[in-house]
Amino acid sequence: MDKILVLGAGKSSGVLIEYLANQASKHLYILKVADADYRNLTERVSRFPEVEQFCGNLGDVDCLNALISDAKIVVSLLPPSMHFQVAKICLEQSKHFLSASYISPELKTIEEQVKQKGLVFLMECGLDPGIDHMSAMKMIDKLKEDGAKITSFHSYCGGLVTPESNTNPWGYKVTWNPRNVVLAGLGTSQYLENNQLKIVPYSQLFLHTTNLQFDIYGEYEAYPNRDSISYIEKYGLQEACSFLRGTIRYKGFSAAWDKLVKLGFTDDSVRFRNADKMKISEMTSSFCQDRISVSDYLKLEKEEFHKLDWLGIFSDSYLDVKPEATPAECLQKIIEDKWRLSEGDKDLVLMQHQIDFELNGIKNKIISSLSVEGNNSLNTAMARTVGLPLGIATLLVFKNKIHKKGVLTPVVKEIYNPILEELQSEKIFFREYTYSSQ
Amino acid sequence: MDKILVLGAGKSSGVLIEYLANQASKHLYILKVADADYRNLTERVSRFPEVEQFCGNLGDVDCLNALISDAKIVVSLLPPSMHFQVAKICLEQSKHFLSASYISPELKTIEEQVKQKGLVFLMECGLDPGIDHMSAMKMIDKLKEDGAKITSFHSYCGGLVTPESNTNPWGYKVTWNPRNVVLAGLGTSQYLENNQLKIVPYSQLFLHTTNLQFDIYGEYEAYPNRDSISYIEKYGLQEACSFLRGTIRYKGFSAAWDKLVKLGFTDDSVRFRNADKMKISEMTSSFCQDRISVSDYLKLEKEEFHKLDWLGIFSDSYLDVKPEATPAECLQKIIEDKWRLSEGDKDLVLMQHQIDFELNGIKNKIISSLSVEGNNSLNTAMARTVGLPLGIATLLVFKNKIHKKGVLTPVVKEIYNPILEELQSEKIFFREYTYSSQ
Repeated sequence: MDKILVLGAGKSSGVLIEYLANQASKHLYILKVADADYRNLTERVSRFPEVEQFCGNLGDVDCLNALISDAKIVVSLLPPSMHFQVAKICLEQSKHFLSASYISPELKTIEEQVKQKGLVFLMECGLDPGIDHMSAMKMIDKLKEDGAKITSFHSYCGGLVTPESNTNPWGYKVTWNPRNVVLAGLGTSQYLENNQLKIVPYSQLFLHTTNLQFDIYGEYEAYPNRDSISYIEKYGLQEACSFLRGTIRYKGFSAAWDKLVKLGFTDDSVRFRNADKMKISEMTSSFCQDRISVSDYLKLEKEEFHKLDWLGIFSDSYLDVKPEATPAECLQKIIEDKWRLSEGDKDLVLMQHQIDFELNGIKNKIISSLSVEGNNSLNTAMARTVGLPLGIATLLVFKNKIHKKGVLTPVVKEIYNPILEELQSEKIFFREYTYSSQ
Repeated sequence: MDKILVLGAGKSSGVLIEYLANQASKHLYILKVADADYRNLTERVSRFPEVEQFCGNLGDVDCLNALISDAKIVVSLLPPSMHFQVAKICLEQSKHFLSASYISPELKTIEEQVKQKGLVFLMECGLDPGIDHMSAMKMIDKLKEDGAKITSFHSYCGGLVTPESNTNPWGYKVTWNPRNVVLAGLGTSQYLENNQLKIVPYSQLFLHTTNLQFDIYGEYEAYPNRDSISYIEKYGLQEACSFLRGTIRYKGFSAAWDKLVKLGFTDDSVRFRNADKMKISEMTSSFCQDRISVSDYLKLEKEEFHKLDWLGIFSDSYLDVKPEATPAECLQKIIEDKWRLSEGDKDLVLMQHQIDFELNGIKNKIISSLSVEGNNSLNTAMARTVGLPLGIATLLVFKNKIHKKGVLTPVVKEIYNPILEELQSEKIFFREYTYSSQ
């Protein structure tokens, strides 16, 4: 029997593994899951006795080579930095490859060879990137077929918690990679507005919010998500005057996070010397002497000061970090603790597309929204919305349903249609409202 | 006769070439100068008929190999990114190597081999880095020999213009590499204050100024210059509670420059699409719509607004840049034009060390200041203070006066003493005042 190999059985892998395990007998394949940590395998794989397990060093090329030689398809949940190594081996051994990560510049260098070998390397197939591409492209393709001219496209996504689980002053808990939470937005963001390129430096990013509304969940804010410009062509929206992808947060989050950025707490380029022996308040003093001067320095509003104080940046406790930790690594420890999901907490994935278009001389606006609630702190909406599209896509590849070859993203019909359909049966779907100017 | 090879005859090379040309007959060597642009050679070398010239592509390894094979010593004024290539060839061919640039991480990788071959690779031998190291180390070594305990070290340097030539609202004109002016301070700066590491993100750097005083020139401001921490060990000042290196500007410069940073004009990571066809005001609109909203967005004081307006960021003129220029590349064009030295303008190099020390139970402070005025817009103080130390050092190496081998900086007596002595005869010297608490 053919084998599907999943690399990585970490936190967000549970749903993917469960989905592929449950489908194995029906579709006649063997599922094999590999991880460096046997505890991950015990926790997420052992309850499926027919799933093969491998515990070993996945950073080792020989090990990867042997594992992959056995498989027909490789799905990687490893850190993005390891993907190119895996992809190169898949190319050598002519195996299909899937992941939920962004297409990296390295991966682009082997694009032509992947195509020539008739392989499918399907990337960006999780939530964001993933469901965002699929749902947007379905709307865009439909509108174009109807003869509409799309003038403006805005798309927002956020991994949050439900209002009932929103029990801290920040309105945020960690439901995905905490390092990415700390480094979110680093670099310079850009988007298109009224045919004009808009550039937002990191130091202004979190002041650059717009509001948006979700039916039963109320009002949120969003800031621009890195480089929106590169998606204009991918989405075929060269005609649009405005194009923005944004990140959703509870209102008030961004203004306070901006203060942590300005203070220096998200910096990952300098290192403390004895971070393991420093009180958090001493770290804060590296940026600014004490709570009174911090308040002056950052011109803190009362509510912002309360958020920073609640996070414990003036506290005399210690962090479990290495001596030469960066400020960003220390902040990560702080939020992993303070923004931890409690057992009964439910996370909330929100996504919204706003599309302006003209059809038969009439101006219209579609607002299409997705909201997915998690069941509890383990079975999260984040794990479902990342794992299910990837699992469904893996089956599509397994059943040879994808005819396009090469390094792909799910922006084409033959990929997004069956995935969105299957997601609907898993209760992951968008509600769409159209507003007309007449 | 032995040959000394100078690579690069660009703007700042005139003084070095003249110095080495004038000493050639006395010390019996041939000077050879190479550049990719014959105009540079015509302008700066042709008036010395005994100096050999070479015009060719210095980016070409074969070309460099041939040139270097002929020389005993190589002095590089090429862009820092080319230094490692030159250094590797010098190592292979067993030639000494000098430059005014910082020791790069790559250069550190061949440190041991350079030493084993008995070569001198003397780096950081210009103004800053260069004269700053030498003058500081002379004071530090002397104080230590006297039995003093140094508790605090602050060192500042700036390339400015004289008060009479200070004829624009910024108090700044371009006297060195304009790209470095635009990118100054990028990254995160750090220093030591009262035994505490201080971290300053780029977005706060230009708000983080202190004032300092120069005899006849008056009051200036200074902001922290990147990573001061790495110099503590180099200067042997592990005992000091405070250690800072800073960059000097006319008062008010930094607060206004901070606004350009916040706007996004110093960003070098994103690209305009048709920068050559954009009005400068349109570039500014990429960051913020118009002059009124810029003023709100950045909370501009009247004087700051005047500085930005004077620079022309709201003007409808065009820049001579490539279509896909970055904001930083555009700002560089703006300042090259607006901050150009006029013919009669004199530049001004300022440097100041402030050292607190305890001796025999008494607390003292030394303030040691250097000021060098240029003669005109061509014969600048910057060219003299960069070129002379490098020229003097080259002669020291030529005469085998440096016994230490390896990748060096001028922090040791056998290097800094003769250079500082010779600089004094060129009227480049510090004035020192000591203040005692009793």
